[in-house]
Amino acid sequence: MSETALIIGAGSGLSAALARLFAREKMRMALAARRTEKLAPLLAETGARAWRCDAAKREDVETLFAAVEAELGTPDLVVYNPSARARGAITELDPEEVQNTLLVTCFGGFLVAQAAARRMLKRGSGTILFTGASASVKGYARSAPFAMGKFGLRGLAQSLARELHPQNIHIGHFVIDGGIGRAGDARAGQRGEDGMLDPDAIAASYLHVHRQHRSAWTWEMELRPWLETF
Amino acid sequence: MSETALIIGAGSGLSAALARLFAREKMRMALAARRTEKLAPLLAETGARAWRCDAAKREDVETLFAAVEAELGTPDLVVYNPSARARGAITELDPEEVQNTLLVTCFGGFLVAQAAARRMLKRGSGTILFTGASASVKGYARSAPFAMGKFGLRGLAQSLARELHPQNIHIGHFVIDGGIGRAGDARAGQRGEDGMLDPDAIAASYLHVHRQHRSAWTWEMELRPWLETF
Amino acid sequence: MSETALIIGAGSGLSAALARLFAREKMRMALAARRTEKLAPLLAETGARAWRCDAAKREDVETLFAAVEAELGTPDLVVYNPSARARGAITELDPEEVQNTLLVTCFGGFLVAQAAARRMLKRGSGTILFTGASASVKGYARSAPFAMGKFGLRGLAQSLARELHPQNIHIGHFVIDGGIGRAGDARAGQRGEDGMLDPDAIAASYLHVHRQHRSAWTWEMELRPWLETF
Amino acid sequence: MSETALIIGAGSGLSAALARLFAREKMRMALAARRTEKLAPLLAETGARAWRCDAAKREDVETLFAAVEAELGTPDLVVYNPSARARGAITELDPEEVQNTLLVTCFGGFLVAQAAARRMLKRGSGTILFTGASASVKGYARSAPFAMGKFGLRGLAQSLARELHPQNIHIGHFVIDGGIGRAGDARAGQRGEDGMLDPDAIAASYLHVHRQHRSAWTWEMELRPWLETF
Repeated sequence: MSETALIIGAGSGLSAALARLFAREKMRMALAARRTEKLAPLLAETGARAWRCDAAKREDVETLFAAVEAELGTPDLVVYNPSARARGAITELDPEEVQNTLLVTCFGGFLVAQAAARRMLKRGSGTILFTGASASVKGYARSAPFAMGKFGLRGLAQSLARELHPQNIHIGHFVIDGGIGRAGDARAGQRGEDGMLDPDAIAASYLHVHRQHRSAWTWEMELRPWLETF
Repeated sequence: MSETALIIGAGSGLSAALARLFAREKMRMALAARRTEKLAPLLAETGARAWRCDAAKREDVETLFAAVEAELGTPDLVVYNPSARARGAITELDPEEVQNTLLVTCFGGFLVAQAAARRMLKRGSGTILFTGASASVKGYARSAPFAMGKFGLRGLAQSLARELHPQNIHIGHFVIDGGIGRAGDARAGQRGEDGMLDPDAIAASYLHVHRQHRSAWTWEMELRPWLETF
Repeated sequence: MSETALIIGAGSGLSAALARLFAREKMRMALAARRTEKLAPLLAETGARAWRCDAAKREDVETLFAAVEAELGTPDLVVYNPSARARGAITELDPEEVQNTLLVTCFGGFLVAQAAARRMLKRGSGTILFTGASASVKGYARSAPFAMGKFGLRGLAQSLARELHPQNIHIGHFVIDGGIGRAGDARAGQRGEDGMLDPDAIAASYLHVHRQHRSAWTWEMELRPWLETF
Repeated sequence: MSETALIIGAGSGLSAALARLFAREKMRMALAARRTEKLAPLLAETGARAWRCDAAKREDVETLFAAVEAELGTPDLVVYNPSARARGAITELDPEEVQNTLLVTCFGGFLVAQAAARRMLKRGSGTILFTGASASVKGYARSAPFAMGKFGLRGLAQSLARELHPQNIHIGHFVIDGGIGRAGDARAGQRGEDGMLDPDAIAASYLHVHRQHRSAWTWEMELRPWLETF
C-alpha cells in the first residue's frame, strides 16, 4: 500500500520539491499552508490535496490531521517547515513579532508533532522531519528571535528523537545551512554555480532519512552548498 | 560608586545565594518575582528591594525596569532565572502548558534582555546572565517543552553575545547540569557529599563571569557536581 | 565511465558491506588492509582487488595510492575506517599503545586524506569519507585514547571539509553511535531486533552522501539504532 | 599548607601570567619547558623552579614529575600548555611535522595527565587544566594538523573529566578563542583596545576554575575578547 505524506508549510521551493519527489515515490500527499491559493499548479502536477492551516493554532492543526486521516489515512511521513523571522537589533525588535516568531517556528512544531505522534504511535510507525536552518545551531547577531525559534525547534526534535525512536517513530532534523535557490534562478547564479541549496537536492536527503533502516537512523543532518563558508 | 544588580525570578535557592553574594559585594539590589510575599527575610538580610513581575508579560517587564532605574539606577548586572516546566509524553502534554513553558522560559528572557540592553547600551556597559539547565544542550525524552524553552533561551543568549559583546555588554549563559541543593539539605545528602550544586558555589561563578576583564569574556559556562554523570 | 572506490581498513562488517554495495553500483574497487589473507571470499564476490597497507605508515600509504592509481585509476571515493583502541583507567594505560591508537585512528587518516586529495584535486573531484564513532563527539571514562584518536580524526575531517569543499572534493564524517552487527548475528539479537547497526544500512548512508548534489552537501552524519540510548 | 603548581610549556605570555598569579596565591611553583634559558627573570620574580622537559617524551615527563614531587611535593594544580602547529594546504603538509604536531599538542597532554593523575589519585585531590584554542572546537581550512591535535586534546580532557571528577580530581579545558597579547603590546593595540586576550585575564579564569567548589565544577570554559568575531 502506498504511503501518505503530509507537508506543513507548503508553497516554498523546498515544499514543492518534496511534493514532486514524494509523488514520484507514489505517496498520497497532503499539503497544508496558511494560504493555499497559489498551490493549484503544484496540486495538479502532483495529485496532492491541500488544506488551509495556521500551524501555530491548536484547532487548525487538529482539524488538519483529522481531515488528512479521514481522507488519506494516517500519515507515514510528516514534514514541518514553517518559520517566521523578526530581524533587527535587540533594542528595536517588536515583542509581538518576536512572540509570533517563537509560536510559528517552534510551538507549531510541537502541535504538529503531537498530532502526528498520537496517530503514528497507534499504528506503530512513522517519520517526522523538521526543517531547521543555520540559526538552529548558531545564534547570529541581530537575529535573536529566529535563533530562539530554531534552537527551540531543535530542542523539540532532539527530545522527540530520544522519546520516540524506541517506539519506532523516526525523528529527523535538518540544518539547512545556506540559502535555497534552484540552479537556474538569478539569485542562485550570483552565488556561483550550485552556490545555493537546490531544493531537489535537499528533498533527496529528506527522502533518504525517511527510508533509512531503523538499525541506522540519523536524527540530525546538515546540508550546505559546496561553496558555503561555515 | 556601587553597582546595581537586578535578579529576575527571585526566591529559589540560587536567587537567594546570588542576592547574598551581591550584597557582600556592596551592590544595590532589586529582586523581581511573580510572588514577593516570601522574600521578606531575604530583603531584610540583604537590603534588597523587591518588585512583583511576571517576566513573560511585556508591561510587567517594562514597569519593573522603569522602577528599578528610577530608584536604584540603571542595572550593571541583570540575571534571568525564570522557567516553567511541563513534563510528560508528547502525546499527553497540554498545549496551554507547553506554550506557557515557552513564554516563561524563553520569551521572558527576550523581554528582560531587551529592557536591559536598551538601558545598558545608553550607558555603554553592563552584564546580562541567563540561567540554563542540562536541557539547554540536551533534549530529554518526555521533556520536550523544557527543551524547547531552554534551547530557545540559549539561542537568544548566543545571538546577544555576538551582537552585544562588541558594544561592551557582557552576555553569560550558564548550563546548570544537575540538581541544586544546599550542602546541609536532606535531598542534597542523598546524592552523596556535594552531590548537588550548592547555590553559593554557583553564585561564585556568576560573579566571576561578571567580573571578567573584557579581553577574556566567557559567554557560556557549565557547572555540575563532581559526582554527576554526564 | 565507472567510478573507482578505495576502502582503507577492509575486513570488518562495515567494509564488506561497503564493498558489496559499491560493487552493485558498478564501481571498480580497491581494498586495503594490514592483513589481506581473509579477504579472498570478498574479493571473489565483489571483483575487488586488495593491497596490504599499514595506514599509519607514510610509505605504505604512498605505495598503495600509486598502485591503485596505476591499476584502477584515480579513486572517486575513498573511505577511511581504521582505528585502534586502548582501554583502561588513565593510570593503567600503556603509553606505547596510546601513541599507536593516535597514529592508527587519526594520523593514518591524515596520510590517506593527503594522498587522496593530491590526486582528486588534479582531477577536480572526489569524495573522502571517514568512519567515526560515539567517541568522536563524547569522551568516555576509561577510554581516553580512543577519544583522542576519534576527536582528532573529526578535527581533520572538519578542517578538510572547509578547505576542500570549495575545490569540489566532498568530505564526509560518520558518527557511528552504537555497535555494528548484522541482523542475524547472535550479538545483534541480544540487543533486541535491529538493536545494532546493520552494516548494509550504514553503507546505504555512505553511498547517499557520496551521491549528494554539491549544492547540498553533508559533512557529518550520525547513525544509531532506533533502540540506542543517547 | 601552601599548594604546589606545575606549569608545563612555560615561557609564553600565558604561562608567565599564570606563574605570577599563582605566586601571589602563595603556591610553590614548578615550570617545565623544552628550553629553560629564558626563564631566569620569571624564576627570580616568582620564586619558581624550572625543569627541562619535552612533554611528548615519556621519560622526560616521568623524570619531571619525580623531581617535582621530591622537591615541591605532589602538585595540587597542573597546567598543560604545549602545542605545535603545522599550517598549509593538505597537499603541502610535511607528514613529519603533522605527526610532531599531534605528539606535542595531544599525546604530551596524555603523558602529563597520566603522571599527574597517578600522584593526585594517591592523595585524593588535584586539578589538571588543559589549554585549548579556537581549533579545539572548529577545524579551520589549511590548518588540519592543529585541529587534529587540539580536538584530540579536548577528547582527552572530556574523557578524563568523566573518569576523574568522581574521584575528586578536577579537569578543566579552556578554549582560548583569539590571539593572546598584553594590553600594552603593539599587536594587541592593532586589534583595538582589549582586542586580544590579556594573559592576566586568562589566568584569572584558570584560577577561578581551580578554586571552584566541587559541587559546581566546570570542565570547559571558553574565553574570547569582547571584539572577537565568533
